[in-house]
Amino acid sequence: MKIEAVDFFYVAMPEVTTAADGSQDALVVRVVAGGHVGWGECEAAPLPSIAAFICPMSHGACRPVSASVLGRTIDGPEDIHAMAADVAYLSMDLLQAAHTWSGIEMALWDLLGKARGQPAWKLLGYERAYAKTPYASVLFGADPQETLERAQTIRDRGFRAAKFGWSPFGQSLDGDIAHLDAAREGLGNDGILLIDAGQIFGEDVEAAALRLDAMERNRVTFFEEPFHGSAYLAYGALSSRMRNVRSAGGEAAHNRHMAEHLIDFGKVGFIQIDCGRIGGLAPAKQVADYAVKRGVTYVNHTFTSNLALSASLQPFAGLEDHRICEYPTTLRQLAVDLTVDHIVPDANGEIHVPDAPGLGVEINTEALTRYKVDVEIKVGGRTLFAPPRV
Amino acid sequence: MKIEAVDFFYVAMPEVTTAADGSQDALVVRVVAGGHVGWGECEAAPLPSIAAFICPMSHGACRPVSASVLGRTIDGPEDIHAMAADVAYLSMDLLQAAHTWSGIEMALWDLLGKARGQPAWKLLGYERAYAKTPYASVLFGADPQETLERAQTIRDRGFRAAKFGWSPFGQSLDGDIAHLDAAREGLGNDGILLIDAGQIFGEDVEAAALRLDAMERNRVTFFEEPFHGSAYLAYGALSSRMRNVRSAGGEAAHNRHMAEHLIDFGKVGFIQIDCGRIGGLAPAKQVADYAVKRGVTYVNHTFTSNLALSASLQPFAGLEDHRICEYPTTLRQLAVDLTVDHIVPDANGEIHVPDAPGLGVEINTEALTRYKVDVEIKVGGRTLFAPPRV
Repeated sequence: MKIEAVDFFYVAMPEVTTAADGSQDALVVRVVAGGHVGWGECEAAPLPSIAAFICPMSHGACRPVSASVLGRTIDGPEDIHAMAADVAYLSMDLLQAAHTWSGIEMALWDLLGKARGQPAWKLLGYERAYAKTPYASVLFGADPQETLERAQTIRDRGFRAAKFGWSPFGQSLDGDIAHLDAAREGLGNDGILLIDAGQIFGEDVEAAALRLDAMERNRVTFFEEPFHGSAYLAYGALSSRMRNVRSAGGEAAHNRHMAEHLIDFGKVGFIQIDCGRIGGLAPAKQVADYAVKRGVTYVNHTFTSNLALSASLQPFAGLEDHRICEYPTTLRQLAVDLTVDHIVPDANGEIHVPDAPGLGVEINTEALTRYKVDVEIKVGGRTLFAPPRV
Repeated sequence: MKIEAVDFFYVAMPEVTTAADGSQDALVVRVVAGGHVGWGECEAAPLPSIAAFICPMSHGACRPVSASVLGRTIDGPEDIHAMAADVAYLSMDLLQAAHTWSGIEMALWDLLGKARGQPAWKLLGYERAYAKTPYASVLFGADPQETLERAQTIRDRGFRAAKFGWSPFGQSLDGDIAHLDAAREGLGNDGILLIDAGQIFGEDVEAAALRLDAMERNRVTFFEEPFHGSAYLAYGALSSRMRNVRSAGGEAAHNRHMAEHLIDFGKVGFIQIDCGRIGGLAPAKQVADYAVKRGVTYVNHTFTSNLALSASLQPFAGLEDHRICEYPTTLRQLAVDLTVDHIVPDANGEIHVPDAPGLGVEINTEALTRYKVDVEIKVGGRTLFAPPRV
């Protein structure tokens, strides 16, 4: 099948705020080949990601992502691997390329799965898919009371696990301890409690370590992204000071190596991969294999639509013991509306990666029009990008 | 001084080829504050880098680079550090941000140096600047004979060191050995010979190691970028198999951590930093300090204009023993024309970082018009970018 078209749909809420909420806009990718249509999503800034696809070549190792995709054939996984290798080499000096390619790669698996009538996780090599225990992923409340109420709501909705993240965490030690206590209280004794610091400690190991006692006492399962995504040594130093808590990170990884280094040098207990950034499903599956070998638990990172959620589940769908998964529960309407299908917890509070061709999540094309951001990029008088027809 | 304007000038040769020649286009940055003008250059794909400055915010941790720069004050180095920290945090999820910020950061040092009447290297903390031994940086010839002739030309021009890079290196073992022998023969017995594989071996340590005997025999000083920039373990494995040759890398580092990890885990003997990618002069200086502590030699990576060359020399200007520096000798006319001043070897074949305020290299504004690439970016009907007035 020859790749006939790769289209980018930039959609956004009418108002985008400074909340650490990745569901306020989206960059959806559509790939057409051999009469099939595949969909993917970059977890990335839309405009620079579009630019990385259509920009003029700077030199042989700084070509647009399109140079490795348009006109190529997609008949099997090996074609996806070959394109990925070309993007890595021919767009070596184009930093944004990994984020752009991630959405395309996802769409290629979706397309290939539809062409073969197989879910992506089967194409990735898994025999079966196991249920996952979703953790409701929310931001901390503005004060401990609000955090407590959010935790109670999550428990009342039937979730067995919850992750609280970002501001105001990190602003004061006393405040953080109060939020940790509140989250545990609201979630109840048996809930799985996870904390996401959103890199607030930079690389200040001592500052992060001051929170460990309260985390151990509140039986926090993982302490996510205390530091800058590349500060492996800070991760390693903090990890060595944990008793039962484990460190977690990896969402910033834009290639497989970065995730593996966080495992080897950062000594994380949980490696969190965003398929919309690391280069799609294939490198994520390689990280999952690596995590298994190293005794580390693989977790998805997802804070956007259910298309991205399905994609993020595929690389570890077949790992029965890698049980918890990130499940955003406070998506903006845009991210809800983006898909016709929604992945929801079953009566046991577990979620299932779709057992359907490709990613198994249908895009609601009407939403692509409703939330469309009108972008036009002209270079040398020629229009290199305009919103594609739905 | 309040930052009044940050302007991006995208310039390119009329024809851009697939040669691994980074001087075919450029993204020049002009910052205006307090009546002073500073200039910098991103070593990056221009269109995505511009987009990373002007794009709409996606969420609180995915803001455009402009959010951390426009309207800020620049009165001392601490203001540059503060903006850098904000870019790292507020543009955390915007991959291209580091490349965009690099050119701005460079311009801020240039501006600050001009305001204070001091060269940037003094502002970075050096008492004096030492001469550097430039290595002529060229691509391999199409065949060994052409490589030999290039080496002879370099020697005849008075260079004591030369670096040969990229294709056809890596295509065949016999061919590579012939090129290595030719380069040594052309350069003469006493020349410093450096090899740049341009990541051709991906992460295949064995393939790269097959070249080591011929490198040792030809007394190659360093073997640059055998692998993908993040493949630290491959670097480490190859480094351990070297006798006198040393590995080199780091140009892909888009933050300080990546360069430090390449030192610690990749065991490189030479760390090569591009100020136009790593986030500018300040993180490069931190890497230089780290290299000194670790007994590793700092080298600039530069393949564009003499503005970028001056910037790249600043972070190790005061390191007397870190002697060699990359000096592109086959720049396209655009990169030559971009600056009024040119850094040229003295009678002893050495080059000197300018002892003049800021970066000490004046931009030829006429070239910004002559080579201008006409770009227009509109979002929601509003023009977010158009070429600025020179």
